[in-house]
Formats: sequence, C-alpha cells, structure tokens
Amino acid sequence: MNAPHIVVLGGGFAGIEFCKALKNQPVRITLVDRQNHHLFQPLLYQVASAGLAAPEIAHPIRSIFSDFDNVDVILDEVTAIQLKEKSVSLRDGDSLDYDYLIIGLGVKTGYFGNNEWKKHAPGLKTINDALRIRREILLAFEKAETCEDEADRQRYMTTVVVGGGPTGVELAGAFAEIARHVLKSDFRKIDTSTARIFLVEAAPRLLTMYDEKLSDYTEKKLTSLGVTVKVNTMVKSISDRSVDLGTETIEAGNIIWAAGVEAPKVTRDLGVELDTGGRIVVEGDLSVPGFPEVFALGDIAHCIDQAGKRVPGLCPAAIQMGKHAAKVIADELGTTPAKGYPVRKQFRYFDKGSMATIGRSAAVAESNGMKFDGFIAWLMWLFIHLLFLVGFRNKAAVLLQWIYAYARYRRGARIITGITYDS
Amino acid sequence: MNAPHIVVLGGGFAGIEFCKALKNQPVRITLVDRQNHHLFQPLLYQVASAGLAAPEIAHPIRSIFSDFDNVDVILDEVTAIQLKEKSVSLRDGDSLDYDYLIIGLGVKTGYFGNNEWKKHAPGLKTINDALRIRREILLAFEKAETCEDEADRQRYMTTVVVGGGPTGVELAGAFAEIARHVLKSDFRKIDTSTARIFLVEAAPRLLTMYDEKLSDYTEKKLTSLGVTVKVNTMVKSISDRSVDLGTETIEAGNIIWAAGVEAPKVTRDLGVELDTGGRIVVEGDLSVPGFPEVFALGDIAHCIDQAGKRVPGLCPAAIQMGKHAAKVIADELGTTPAKGYPVRKQFRYFDKGSMATIGRSAAVAESNGMKFDGFIAWLMWLFIHLLFLVGFRNKAAVLLQWIYAYARYRRGARIITGITYDS
Repeated sequence: MNAPHIVVLGGGFAGIEFCKALKNQPVRITLVDRQNHHLFQPLLYQVASAGLAAPEIAHPIRSIFSDFDNVDVILDEVTAIQLKEKSVSLRDGDSLDYDYLIIGLGVKTGYFGNNEWKKHAPGLKTINDALRIRREILLAFEKAETCEDEADRQRYMTTVVVGGGPTGVELAGAFAEIARHVLKSDFRKIDTSTARIFLVEAAPRLLTMYDEKLSDYTEKKLTSLGVTVKVNTMVKSISDRSVDLGTETIEAGNIIWAAGVEAPKVTRDLGVELDTGGRIVVEGDLSVPGFPEVFALGDIAHCIDQAGKRVPGLCPAAIQMGKHAAKVIADELGTTPAKGYPVRKQFRYFDKGSMATIGRSAAVAESNGMKFDGFIAWLMWLFIHLLFLVGFRNKAAVLLQWIYAYARYRRGARIITGITYDS
Repeated sequence: MNAPHIVVLGGGFAGIEFCKALKNQPVRITLVDRQNHHLFQPLLYQVASAGLAAPEIAHPIRSIFSDFDNVDVILDEVTAIQLKEKSVSLRDGDSLDYDYLIIGLGVKTGYFGNNEWKKHAPGLKTINDALRIRREILLAFEKAETCEDEADRQRYMTTVVVGGGPTGVELAGAFAEIARHVLKSDFRKIDTSTARIFLVEAAPRLLTMYDEKLSDYTEKKLTSLGVTVKVNTMVKSISDRSVDLGTETIEAGNIIWAAGVEAPKVTRDLGVELDTGGRIVVEGDLSVPGFPEVFALGDIAHCIDQAGKRVPGLCPAAIQMGKHAAKVIADELGTTPAKGYPVRKQFRYFDKGSMATIGRSAAVAESNGMKFDGFIAWLMWLFIHLLFLVGFRNKAAVLLQWIYAYARYRRGARIITGITYDS
C-alpha cells in the first residue's frame, strides 16, 4: 500500500501536534500555512505591549519539522476545499489531493458583521496585528507629547479595549502598566500615568468563563492599575477616533478589538453544519460529519465533550485534538475501507483549566474546580508559559528578559518599526 | 543667563554621545529623530540575516534619556535648516530655534544617481530595511520550494550583493551560511546549499580600506563559504529580476545594495561646502564654516583629522565627535560672544581600527597597523560588539542567543512578518 497523503491546513497548535504525533509513521504529510511561523499565541499580547520581540514567540514551521522526513511544508493559503473530490485549492493556483485532511485553520478576529470597524479597531491574532498595535500605541504617546491641542492630546492618551475576555484583560493590564510605569519618566510634556484605558464588555462581568469571584478580583485589580472597566456595555459604533457606547462616546487614539472571533471564510462553502461563528460542528471522533477522512481540530472545530460541554478554544484543547486525530489515523494505517476501518476512539477532553494574567504580578487561574488569584496565580501562569516555551530556542533568553523587565519595569521591545518617510 | 537651547538632529552614535556628555550641564537639549530608537548599526546585518530580532539592537531614545532632566526628545523629521535664522523646520509644521545646533543625521543608501534601482535593490540602513531584506530573502526560498519552472527556481535561489565593503562582506557571508547550514534541512524539494550568492565590487579588491592581505583573506574565506566574489566589476543596470554587469547578466531573486551612501537632502540647501556625497565639510573643531554655533558630527561630516586623513564613517569616530562637540560647548557655557569665546580645541581622531566579520568564526581586523584575521579576529569582533551592547538591556540575552545559535547553527529570528492576505 502507498503511504496515504495527509494534507494539514494550518500550523497552529492542532496542526503541529498532529504532525509531531505521526513522526516516522508511513504517511506523507503536506502542511500548508500562510505564514512561515508557528505562533505562541498566549504571549502575543506581550509583543503588542512591547514586552517581547516578535521572533521570541514565533518559530519557523520548517525548522520544527526539519528532521521529519514525512512532512513537507508549503507557505501558501488555502482558498477552497472540495470535500467530495478530496482536494484543496491554494492561492498560488496549485491544488492538493488528499487521503486524509486536517482542518486546523484557527479563527480570526470577528466583528459580528460590522467589518467596517476593522480598520479602526485592529484585533490581535497575528504577529502583524501585534506589531501594528505596538506601533500605534507608542506613536499615540509621541503624538500626545508634541501636540498643541488639549483635546487632541487627551484623545491620543486614551485607549479603548473592546472585549473583556482573557485577551482584552491582558492587553488592558499591560497597557496600564506601560503608561503608569514603563513610559512615565520618558516624556517631558505629558504625564503618561494620566493615560486613560477603558475595557468595555457587553456581559455583566469580565472573564465570563471563569468563576464570578475571579471576575470580581480581575475587575478590582484592573481598576487599581488605573483601567476603567465598563461591563454591561455594548459598542454601538466605532470611528477612526471614537467609540460610541450609546450612553457616551469615548474619543480614543487607539481602539483594540478583542470582542470576538469567527472561522475563516473557507468553512462557509464546505456544505457542512457550522455554528454561528462559522466553526465546523464535528463528530465525537473530531471528523467532519459524512467525511470520515476529514478532521476539524482546534479553534475551528465546534466540539462537544464527553460531559456535554463545548470544548473551549484554548491551546491545550487544540493540542489534545491534534494528538487524537493522529491516533485515529495511525490506528487505520494498513486497513482499507473494504476490510472495514476499526471503530474509532471518541475524543475525550481533559480540562487542564485556564488562566489569564492581569499585570505585573497578578493573574487568575481555574483548574478542576480550584480557583487561584493574585501572585500565586501569576507564578503558575509564568511557570506554565515558560514550560510551553520549551522547544523554542530562546527559552532562556525570554526568561532572562522577563526577570530583567520585572526587576526594572522596562520594556525593551518598545521600538516603533514601520515608520517610513519619503526621503 | 538663560540656559542655551541646543537642538540635536539625529539619535545616532554622535547625537546620543553628545547629549550624554552634557548630563547635568546648564543647557536645554531638544533631540529630534524620525525614529523612536537608537540603532546599533554594526549588528543591523544580523537582523537582515535572521540572526537577531529587531528590538535586540534598537533602544528607545526616550529611555536612554529618561533621567536626563535637560533632554527633550521629539519624534519628527527635520525638513530644512535655516542657518542664518538659527532655526530648523520639522515635518509636522513646527520649527525650533537654537543657540547651538548639532547635525548628526547620518547618511542614507546612495545609488550614485540611479535612484530607480532603489526599489529593486534595497540598502541596509534602517530596521525597516533589515526586516524587508530578511522577509525577501526568506520568501525567495519559499518561492523556490513551490516553483515549477527551473529557471525561476534558479533565480529565486540567487542573491546578488552589490558593494564589497564591510556591510556587503558581512551580508554575503551571513547569507551563505544561512543557505548552506541553517536552512539546509528545512526544505524538501530544493537544496538550499546550492543557492548562489554573488558579491560584486567595482574596485580591484574587497574591503579597500584594509590592508591587501586582509582583502585576500576575506575573498578566500567568502569563496570557501560558497560566495562568488566578482571584483573589478561595475553594475550597469538593475531590474526587478536581474543585475547587468556588462559582461554578463545575473538573474537574481534578491539584490541588495551596499555600494554607496550619501548625506540626506537637507544638507544641499545649507549653502555650505559639501563633498561629493553631500557631506558637510567641517572645520577642525567640527563646526560648520561660518557658523561656529553649528556642528556636523558622525557620518554626515567630512572631517580631515590631525594626520590629514579623512575620518572614516565608523561608530567610534561618531562617538568621539559627539564627545568633542559637547566639550567645546561646555567650555563656552557662561561665556558670551561679547566677552569672546575661549579658543576652541581641535578634534583629534583616535583611530581604534576597524573590523568586519565574514561568517561563523572568521573576521578581519586592523588596528594601529596590526592586522588580524580568522578566528582570533572574530573573537575580537565578538568581544568588542558585546562590550558595545552594554547599556542595552538585553546584553545577556543577546550573548545567550549567539552562543546557542553558534552551537546549533540556528537562526531564531527567521520568521517572515509583513505577509498579508485579503481575508
């Protein structure tokens, strides 16, 4: 039998773990990603807030698989999936036929249909997003410093973060710390500690997926950092310089959108059941209904776990899904449809809990019904994220930088790139 | 007496050292730079060749002077200098009056009048240049991997570096090492070790400012790394996909221009003597002839030293110039033109020598008539550059990364940023 050809779409946690789990197996894998790097998403807010340099949280996908003879990496974007023909189309015009297909494309920033908000309020899903946010936040302080008009200055020194989930909380906390500590002595005309940061959330509390006590703690902690938290507050509209909240309009130099995600367009033409976010509703074995050779993994999958709950869009879930699909396929190697596939194992989600960091030494964490907050939770967060960075070449360097930044309240990555002039 | 107002144009080595030397002196300094960061230029080629992340060699200017009460930093670009009116105009419309003016604007990539080559052959003077070169070099290998046409593939795998000075030598050596070692096991269809790197120099030898023996060593070493060195070779024209050398045309996916620099446009309207590169010909005290309150420092100055030789455009020269101008001004504090200025000290250049690195453990260095090459020179280079990084927060991190990269032949910064898609 020829080695089956597996096409993997997306080099996120699901796709990478899937490929790793099939090392040395008799399969041919083609991994397609539109970026050349795997991204350590949980630390992306650190790049946006000038705590880390981009390459410190991104790893070239090719080098992850440099000693995997059965993995071929292609830098390209999938434009369409033909489930019945078992083939995918790529932007450069090529198409790939597959025996198995892994859809691990993740999700992108979603504006609930208000796509015109996108240009005023960038989301945070990619390195480019993070570098854009970093540039614009830092440039706003520069503009405030040289600005003559008091209203303009006030606006440049105002940032609105929309969305009180983990990303919004982490960004708001990081921005508050930059303004209050990191940049404070750098400017002469403005007092950066008077910068205003708003965190706007439509639900009645922040971090709705956590226990209410942790939400309360998070709100208190953010408030003490100087963030103005507005819960029960819907965004009515966003312009290039303000956010309309219905009851009030906030003039803001920077608006960041962390309020929603949606699946990429390519899922819409699949002809299979999707949830409201465009995610693919999968079977218990993570395959796409009617197409046992196709799996949807990670954030793009709408998966109900053994307890009847939706599996959350978190790294550990994506990793577990990648391993599960690899196991299912490995079990089927050497079998044929004619002989009958073995009965597939059902995916069981092991909930390791989740955590969000709020600032320089505070976090919230929840695991197996246990709740943590404050410094202890932050140490847990630090430890787990450093463990995660194992395999990234720069673990020691990242650790050193954090220790240094922690001790000195510095942010070494706060350089602005991308400024261009004509001459 | 009011504290005199000193406007410093440019946050390079000259401008930064000048300001540092006037710490706690009764002067008011306004430092203007069009980027928010001071750049450690000698390591810029490492960013271009994916060895270091951008923030590792760039430092926010504001934070350098955060505890200097007499230094005000403005992010803006100077558009004109009115020597007679003692004022400078900025792009945002403001103007600044000065008692003393420091012109430390550096030089930019120059194409000897062939400005149409610029878009095909970027130079390497800024972080953006470095990130562009990194992106294009890495993308060319990606294109070669998926490309069907053999001629196209050959072209994508060909890089031409124009200019055999230190920057050209360092880039060519770094590109050769990436192709031969770093990327070799990452690709499946192409053999990156067959990538062709040309180094083209119009003069009869590389590194013309060095002793001939070191030029010979450099050419041999580069050749052994796989670089094709072409001396006595003039570029006739550059298109988006080829370099015409008169005797032959090289089809190339990447063309880098390291062949010349010139002063920024703003010097042309000063009405003072310039050299052919647009640099300001300065007096022995580094002031601009006829304008004792104006100094030109660093690469933008055409300065003849005590031995009658042109002071080279190197960091140590810029630093010495910055310190000298600060000393001259400090000596004049409290004096007035009416009382007569003290006689100014003449600038004396202390030549510390110069060095260029060729690859993973080879360099050339020349100091006080002594010549070094090979591993010894490389250790000297490493030691001196690490010393220079003192004051950068990430010295230890940079060292760690180098040690790691050296041991493992890795390049952690080889992520491609700036790829954008519509969806």
